[in-house]
Amino acid sequence: MPFRHVVMFQFAEHVDAEHIERLRNGFDALPAQIEEIRSYVHGSDVNISEGNYDYVVVADFDNVHGFIAYRDHPKHVLLIEELIKGHVANRAAVQYQYGAH
Amino acid sequence: MPFRHVVMFQFAEHVDAEHIERLRNGFDALPAQIEEIRSYVHGSDVNISEGNYDYVVVADFDNVHGFIAYRDHPKHVLLIEELIKGHVANRAAVQYQYGAH
Repeated sequence: MPFRHVVMFQFAEHVDAEHIERLRNGFDALPAQIEEIRSYVHGSDVNISEGNYDYVVVADFDNVHGFIAYRDHPKHVLLIEELIKGHVANRAAVQYQYGAH
Repeated sequence: MPFRHVVMFQFAEHVDAEHIERLRNGFDALPAQIEEIRSYVHGSDVNISEGNYDYVVVADFDNVHGFIAYRDHPKHVLLIEELIKGHVANRAAVQYQYGAH
């Protein structure tokens, strides 16, 4: 059963468009670096709804093991260390399985 | 360019498994009732990560107009009134376009 990881960020106040572009490029590079990723669809909120978060990543894997491999992969951990940690005011995440319903 | 709406909920303390099952069934019914929905993949967090939200919906539309039609559709509004409003401690959402990156 496919396994999906969804994560949203609200950026800290100091985060500017250039930082977000670097993050976007970092996310774009991950599927080629982490073989367990089946689909990776991320982007900035389009700003048509009040109170939304700023950025979302929807990542698909074959199963939970694929997700764990991604979560702990050095390239992913490096991206978090360099561009996410200390730059995010709020984070919201869900991992779920789909296809059963 | 496809348009995606992602929303997560943390349920209020009084929400039990039966309530969540009714919500799940309500979400399951929406794609047949709202023609603008292209894909609708929702589910409960699998509880392998600390601090996660409880439930997520990933909904795809052709464009922003499809999303607005869904957002304001009476069947969707009714589901929110009956099973979400007053039953959610936290909500996090992002709308984004994808396919450009």
